[in-house]
Amino acid sequence: MIFETIITTVDLEGNAHVSPFGIRQQEGFVIIAPYKPSTTLQNILTTNYAVMNLSDDVRIFAGAVARKQHYELVATKSVNGYRLANTLAHQELILDKVIYDELRPELWMRVVYAENHQPFAGFNRAQAAVIELAVLASRLAMLPQEKVIAEMRYLQIAIDKTAGEHELQAWQWLVEMVDNFYAAQAGQNQA
Amino acid sequence: MIFETIITTVDLEGNAHVSPFGIRQQEGFVIIAPYKPSTTLQNILTTNYAVMNLSDDVRIFAGAVARKQHYELVATKSVNGYRLANTLAHQELILDKVIYDELRPELWMRVVYAENHQPFAGFNRAQAAVIELAVLASRLAMLPQEKVIAEMRYLQIAIDKTAGEHELQAWQWLVEMVDNFYAAQAGQNQA
Repeated sequence: MIFETIITTVDLEGNAHVSPFGIRQQEGFVIIAPYKPSTTLQNILTTNYAVMNLSDDVRIFAGAVARKQHYELVATKSVNGYRLANTLAHQELILDKVIYDELRPELWMRVVYAENHQPFAGFNRAQAAVIELAVLASRLAMLPQEKVIAEMRYLQIAIDKTAGEHELQAWQWLVEMVDNFYAAQAGQNQA
Repeated sequence: MIFETIITTVDLEGNAHVSPFGIRQQEGFVIIAPYKPSTTLQNILTTNYAVMNLSDDVRIFAGAVARKQHYELVATKSVNGYRLANTLAHQELILDKVIYDELRPELWMRVVYAENHQPFAGFNRAQAAVIELAVLASRLAMLPQEKVIAEMRYLQIAIDKTAGEHELQAWQWLVEMVDNFYAAQAGQNQA
């Protein structure tokens, strides 16, 4: 089972790096498997720790893909790093072992501290639509345009019916990114 | 903003009724707007209370549409009712006012008790796919078959990549329901 989370790491100078990762859990470990090259991978191999944010703020997922930043960080307790201020829960993780792989090494992380900040508010279809569009938007060069546009039209229904402000903002960033991509592609084809 | 929740109510004899509702929040109230006729509406107008479950167990959403039951109930504290055993959080609600409507009255409910049971585990794309298929499956008679089948094929990707056991079970129930519906329709067209 894969959960979409936000992983926060720091480099040796203490600069924070915030990135979405689909993680899985096995034998009590949180497993993060970044594709190389990856700042998150480099930071975890350097510092041996990371913070996993269980957040329903879809702006952070969309912002990572559309290159917009909209979050606040708070210092963590057990590891010398940061968590998102706006997260429902977070876990502080220490690197236990690495399964090396040319393409995608696995980082097996042990939970050393966990905190619950706010209760789950229920499923929101607009949040799920943002996550789906973020997945599509990160693969535009590999997907047929007609598939992306058809899927966006379907996802738009959930946005119109169920979104709040955060979801509308995140959706807007992704739609602009998709529009810009196809506009640039059309420009290239004309040139 | 609409959140998909599970509302638990009881009738005068104490029989529990469990049903998914998309709720909204306004001025600190939880607003439930059931289409008439509705057992949930009748129960709340009779007893003046309800329990809102914030659950990520998609079997309960799928089961309500596909008419399968797979949940356990636990007695609540402030109102004489039940909550789901498997819920991340729940709120106990008292009816404050009713905005009457022929089609869809609004029940404005006040939160008298809230409890957080488990932290949010992160977004899961398979859970969102089950919620979307549950929405489609509840409207089969109104939607073009080709749209439903195309959308199911797209949603299947997230199921294959990210589902756990609960999601696979819920998905299976809904797929069977959709298959049975179109098989029955094909049978009628042949007759």
